[in-house]
Amino acid sequence: MDSYSHLFSKDTASFFRSPVRDIFKRVDLNAIYSFAGGYPSADTFPLEDFRRIMSDVIDRVGAKAFQYGATQGVTELREALSARYGVPMERIQITSSSQQGIDVCTRILADPGDVILTSSPSYLGALQSFRSYRADVRGVEYDSDPDRFAEAYAKAAEQAVSEGKRLKFIYSIPDFQNPSGETLPLEHRRRLVEVARRYGMMIVEDAPYRELRYEGVDVPTIYSIDPDITVHLGSFSKIMAPGFRLGWIFGHPDVLDKIYVCKQSLDLCPPVFDQYVAAEFLSGGSLDRNLSASKALYRAKRDIMLNELEQNMPAGVSWTHPEGGLFLFLTLPEGFDSVKFYDTALDAGVAYVAGSFFYPDAGGRNTMRLNFSFMTADRIREGIRLLASLISG
Amino acid sequence: MDSYSHLFSKDTASFFRSPVRDIFKRVDLNAIYSFAGGYPSADTFPLEDFRRIMSDVIDRVGAKAFQYGATQGVTELREALSARYGVPMERIQITSSSQQGIDVCTRILADPGDVILTSSPSYLGALQSFRSYRADVRGVEYDSDPDRFAEAYAKAAEQAVSEGKRLKFIYSIPDFQNPSGETLPLEHRRRLVEVARRYGMMIVEDAPYRELRYEGVDVPTIYSIDPDITVHLGSFSKIMAPGFRLGWIFGHPDVLDKIYVCKQSLDLCPPVFDQYVAAEFLSGGSLDRNLSASKALYRAKRDIMLNELEQNMPAGVSWTHPEGGLFLFLTLPEGFDSVKFYDTALDAGVAYVAGSFFYPDAGGRNTMRLNFSFMTADRIREGIRLLASLISG
Repeated sequence: MDSYSHLFSKDTASFFRSPVRDIFKRVDLNAIYSFAGGYPSADTFPLEDFRRIMSDVIDRVGAKAFQYGATQGVTELREALSARYGVPMERIQITSSSQQGIDVCTRILADPGDVILTSSPSYLGALQSFRSYRADVRGVEYDSDPDRFAEAYAKAAEQAVSEGKRLKFIYSIPDFQNPSGETLPLEHRRRLVEVARRYGMMIVEDAPYRELRYEGVDVPTIYSIDPDITVHLGSFSKIMAPGFRLGWIFGHPDVLDKIYVCKQSLDLCPPVFDQYVAAEFLSGGSLDRNLSASKALYRAKRDIMLNELEQNMPAGVSWTHPEGGLFLFLTLPEGFDSVKFYDTALDAGVAYVAGSFFYPDAGGRNTMRLNFSFMTADRIREGIRLLASLISG
Repeated sequence: MDSYSHLFSKDTASFFRSPVRDIFKRVDLNAIYSFAGGYPSADTFPLEDFRRIMSDVIDRVGAKAFQYGATQGVTELREALSARYGVPMERIQITSSSQQGIDVCTRILADPGDVILTSSPSYLGALQSFRSYRADVRGVEYDSDPDRFAEAYAKAAEQAVSEGKRLKFIYSIPDFQNPSGETLPLEHRRRLVEVARRYGMMIVEDAPYRELRYEGVDVPTIYSIDPDITVHLGSFSKIMAPGFRLGWIFGHPDVLDKIYVCKQSLDLCPPVFDQYVAAEFLSGGSLDRNLSASKALYRAKRDIMLNELEQNMPAGVSWTHPEGGLFLFLTLPEGFDSVKFYDTALDAGVAYVAGSFFYPDAGGRNTMRLNFSFMTADRIREGIRLLASLISG
């Protein structure tokens, strides 16, 4: 066949490649100063805990850990999550990564042209998934004033309704947002719920970084404010290890039922052995022990990055002060183009993700996302100095 | 919210629950004689090999085995598959289960209303996936004569074209088909390729049982006959263990590229640690050793089932003689209703899957699928005797 283009579905025309994942293909992240990616530090993977738990699961669960499993996930893991987060079992679905959680929510909710409102900037993998279903993705900028914040969402909703569009959901990463690192205050979360209720929308709350708080106090989840309209997505990637590809969904049973049937045809069930390992990692105390060590490590790295930025960045450059998570967001002087600058930086040996990739409606050309979890403290220091010197020109 | 129905996507109206997976929820398969399901025998899972290999991977690969991985899969695993099957690396994509392979092919190829031709009966999980994208699924019955076989596919294609429909692909399970257990002869495969070429369709070749041959000789894959129009799906579920949720796709790079971008937004990458385990299982010789033992076990079980059917089934009942795989297919006298009979059988302690579930266009009410891999030889004997006595009434 000369070409397959006549065979591809309409959705494929809206697929777009992740520039982040493509960076990974292009360069060896270990050979450069990489502030790109959202990789946890390999130092946080407790290899000996994994070895011991895996051996335990083989002894204790045996062959059942290698057989097909229930579509909603292994009972022990759902129980462990239920105990940790106080969510009833029938509201818990295990996913094969929290990216799958985003994708399956979009699949069951959005037809082509349906409107999804999201913070702007927002997580790139979510934008990829939304667009892949040809949803109409509209960004709403953050405002520190809750009234103006809610009004901006209401205005976007009104606009969509006036165009005859169907509103489906608001996508939010309220804790240590990707890419901004910022956390949505409680009042903002309440107002978001009000707007969603008013316009008959759901909220997809993406919370992969929630457990990684380095200062301040936890803000209640959007799910806890309104568990009936909120689908909450969790992830083992940042509290255990991404290589297991496991996450979870909390949601109303009617919504989970659609996700359940969808997941049957997507991949039957999540990885079974990995789920038993995660269950023991969680209920046996390894998770809390490991999380405490990870948080100390990341807090120190964040502080080093903040300090180095303070010491080295030229005037006119500003950045967020994240209370947790893996990223901070840099704003450069108006006119600076971080997409064009990327090749210069990479040639000099330093990588970041251009902020504009995270903007659903373009914009943010003078921004960049910096990750502080992946590299060692020393390399963060050196990398920021290098980046600052390049920016200073 | 009172109801979510106004929020669900159009696709969800075409989701249907797997009656097979729902049987698993309803009964404890270990408490009854279960010929339902497609579970491999737990006796074929080499637990000590798994334990040793997992520990080796932790020693040898270390933290990298728990980090995010490449979307196309871990290089070592793609290399091992390339070496085993003689397919170049750039034509190999790892999937998070071969069910995902089916789903992602449908996603990138079929718009609502597009036509997929499939054998009738066919694999239920594939029908679920096809319908979930609102494809127009049309069944074509098997014919032992290659001319009539090809003609039936051509006729179905012509019919679709005459209705103004777009043809997308032919779905085939050529080796030890699910549910029939039958194998497509070489000439039939060649003719299928001709028909697909003539009508500009692709072929999705689903081959999860291919390595489980108990007699006769291998028939070349459809992929080997025409690697440019065929997407070949493989699975680790039956040659290693289903709990890893790993499979693979062989296909033309242009098609794999679409699958690659789709997989980025589906779940970023397959489970990483599990892929390293599978790579070592394959390249270290465990797979061949284990496969040889599995085949001896399944061959014996198949023979016991065939023998018990011969001894105990009343006149008017016939069944297929599979040369491999996990299933055989029973045809009962016209008028027998295996869907209605199911509750009677289950009450008496024996489960099967009603054949009609596998027919895309209804039909097959007098058929049932029997699995011979899951239960022990003794329980197969007892179960078939019980089933035969129930059928005899």
